[in-house]
Amino acid sequence: MKVNEDYLKLPGSYLFSTIAKKVAAYREAHPDADIIRLGIGDVTRPLPPAVIAALHKAVDEQAVAETFRGYAPDLGYAFLREAMAEHDFQARGCEIAADEIFISDGAKSDSANIQEIFGRDCRIAVCDPVYPVYVDSNVMAGRTGDYDAATGIWSRVIYMPCTAENGFVPELPEEKPDLIYLCYPNNPTGGAITKDQLQRFVDYANETGAVIIYDAAYEAYIREGEGIPHSVYECDGARTCAIELRSFSKNAGFTGLRLGATVIPHDLKTRSGDREVELHSLWARRHGTKYNGAPYIVQRAGEACYSEAGKAEIRELIGGYMRNAGLIRKGLEEAGYEVYGGVHSPYVWLKTPDRLTSWEFFDRLLEQVQVVGTPGSGFGPHGEHYFRLTAFGSYENSVRAIERIRSL
Amino acid sequence: MKVNEDYLKLPGSYLFSTIAKKVAAYREAHPDADIIRLGIGDVTRPLPPAVIAALHKAVDEQAVAETFRGYAPDLGYAFLREAMAEHDFQARGCEIAADEIFISDGAKSDSANIQEIFGRDCRIAVCDPVYPVYVDSNVMAGRTGDYDAATGIWSRVIYMPCTAENGFVPELPEEKPDLIYLCYPNNPTGGAITKDQLQRFVDYANETGAVIIYDAAYEAYIREGEGIPHSVYECDGARTCAIELRSFSKNAGFTGLRLGATVIPHDLKTRSGDREVELHSLWARRHGTKYNGAPYIVQRAGEACYSEAGKAEIRELIGGYMRNAGLIRKGLEEAGYEVYGGVHSPYVWLKTPDRLTSWEFFDRLLEQVQVVGTPGSGFGPHGEHYFRLTAFGSYENSVRAIERIRSL
Repeated sequence: MKVNEDYLKLPGSYLFSTIAKKVAAYREAHPDADIIRLGIGDVTRPLPPAVIAALHKAVDEQAVAETFRGYAPDLGYAFLREAMAEHDFQARGCEIAADEIFISDGAKSDSANIQEIFGRDCRIAVCDPVYPVYVDSNVMAGRTGDYDAATGIWSRVIYMPCTAENGFVPELPEEKPDLIYLCYPNNPTGGAITKDQLQRFVDYANETGAVIIYDAAYEAYIREGEGIPHSVYECDGARTCAIELRSFSKNAGFTGLRLGATVIPHDLKTRSGDREVELHSLWARRHGTKYNGAPYIVQRAGEACYSEAGKAEIRELIGGYMRNAGLIRKGLEEAGYEVYGGVHSPYVWLKTPDRLTSWEFFDRLLEQVQVVGTPGSGFGPHGEHYFRLTAFGSYENSVRAIERIRSL
Repeated sequence: MKVNEDYLKLPGSYLFSTIAKKVAAYREAHPDADIIRLGIGDVTRPLPPAVIAALHKAVDEQAVAETFRGYAPDLGYAFLREAMAEHDFQARGCEIAADEIFISDGAKSDSANIQEIFGRDCRIAVCDPVYPVYVDSNVMAGRTGDYDAATGIWSRVIYMPCTAENGFVPELPEEKPDLIYLCYPNNPTGGAITKDQLQRFVDYANETGAVIIYDAAYEAYIREGEGIPHSVYECDGARTCAIELRSFSKNAGFTGLRLGATVIPHDLKTRSGDREVELHSLWARRHGTKYNGAPYIVQRAGEACYSEAGKAEIRELIGGYMRNAGLIRKGLEEAGYEVYGGVHSPYVWLKTPDRLTSWEFFDRLLEQVQVVGTPGSGFGPHGEHYFRLTAFGSYENSVRAIERIRSL
């Protein structure tokens, strides 16, 4: 029996596991330390009341034979898919139907699994820095070539640098990729993409036959009126070249409840020999064969996010986190840091001081002021000398963390 | 961009999707038909009161910042892993520790995903008939060679026939596999394996360096005192050759709640070049990278299954389904059918009458008496001329279904 050798190519462990271990080690050495975590992108505010009420109601339905629900429909309950189609897409002028939406246990699973429906020799393009899951899932599938530990570069991955110079929106790739991963508002840089900039990628994908995998997990943080699209389907022609990933984690606080969705329009097709293949049907087959649906009670919780009460409560949740983002940004700027993000995004992206590496700055923050952030280099080579702080802490902790960092 | 051509090799659609479509078509043609479903293995009884109470309590915790939980630990909450280690393993004399248990959203996902940690050229052995997910997930990974539509045989799969003659427990395979999938009590045949029979497979795997993937989803249906093992780890040496899949679906009724677990002992190792590799660490990496944990509230529901009240309520649930199994078995026998299973299992496996094919019998039952079962041939070539009925309906529907079948 042989193992999947591609797994063994992965350097070290998953970024957030490494951070968790470092923090655990520090805590063991300093049991009384008052550590503030602005690292992992986990939310801290409780679930909105409309969601809680929907959960209780659905749990009660599961207690009675007449209303008990077992296996969910393969692709998700119609009540949730229809709510998403209406509120997330049609209300914004995007032509997406309920049956083009696949409900899942979260955007992380989907973003890791979506590569599976593509050929093993496809080449991927990613932003650099990038959410590690896009790359690591392709490493595990044998698609990324060899790893150069000195540079942190995979030989078959096409990197699209995102830096302060280009406003964290990359140029079109020089080499031609088959799959292009984009995440906007961006994790980790907090950058946003304008509709015109995104349209360029959509046009490029349609011209070259590439597929865009668009991670819209943070769309709820977009400030209105500045031309920032909430969905790739706001662009002309996206139905023939783009898959979109949606999440309930960062808007409604579902990180511990697990709910997401993937959109694959029926117009997204390719040829295999003389056969026309809809990517929709491949993903449907994967769902039917390798997955068994998100819990009924969680899908009802998702539906509640689209009620009037739910929408208002989510706006309030996001407003609270964005208040944190604003004070983190302002505090760091006043302390002389070079700061990005935090406007259309819960992430603040800062340049490390004194030419420190990202991990050196991580250690300094943890050891000197007991604040945990995320090293930019953990997201890719062009993240080196950057550092990510999240607005997902409590207001009080955000204030205290910034006070501590300013004291450095 | 190319798609994964291996997906295109899959014949037709997933078995249960095909059945659902046939039933939907019948219902459309006969809107008033009173259809009884004893097909898909979905439960119908509501969740036990202890589980409902745990869900409500956990939902309330998610409503308050002080007790809110976001992302779960990568491998699952300790409270659940420890309960499983104690009650499912240590109480039966199996040496399995909490940190060898990985919590997931269900045994279907795990049984489909587990192949990913193995090399692409590994050869799999499966029982024939077999739960389709084991084979289909390996088809999608490119491991099964070519499909012969006439015989339903994949060229690189090693089939282990399970028939009435061998009591639905296969001989050791003639060709040497790398992975051996076993499911006992068996889906679909309802057969059970004795400890001695299972020990032979464990010894064989240790001798040949193969890995057993043991699906124990139905262990709660085992009648005590007859030497039937609940876990592969009751066998000597299983820690060095076996992975076990556990489910909360068929015991506690979690088909719509989604919870399962995979056990990988630290002793299960192999070599890759000069490196010793624990399969545990590969699966941990997969969990950390491509998955984000089962919902906190659902893990609390799982924990409640191990309370005294929960255990008693689950016994009652299972007792109800086994009462159905008994009456289905007895009714069919009295009607002259050749019947198997239904003793240590919620599945009854019958030989079709009049040399009908499985699908012909499916159509006859649906059209003449409006009973839905599952064609044995959908589970593999040696399932032809067999048919599966499940005990998961209500008592009343089980009685009515058998009356109708007897009227044929």
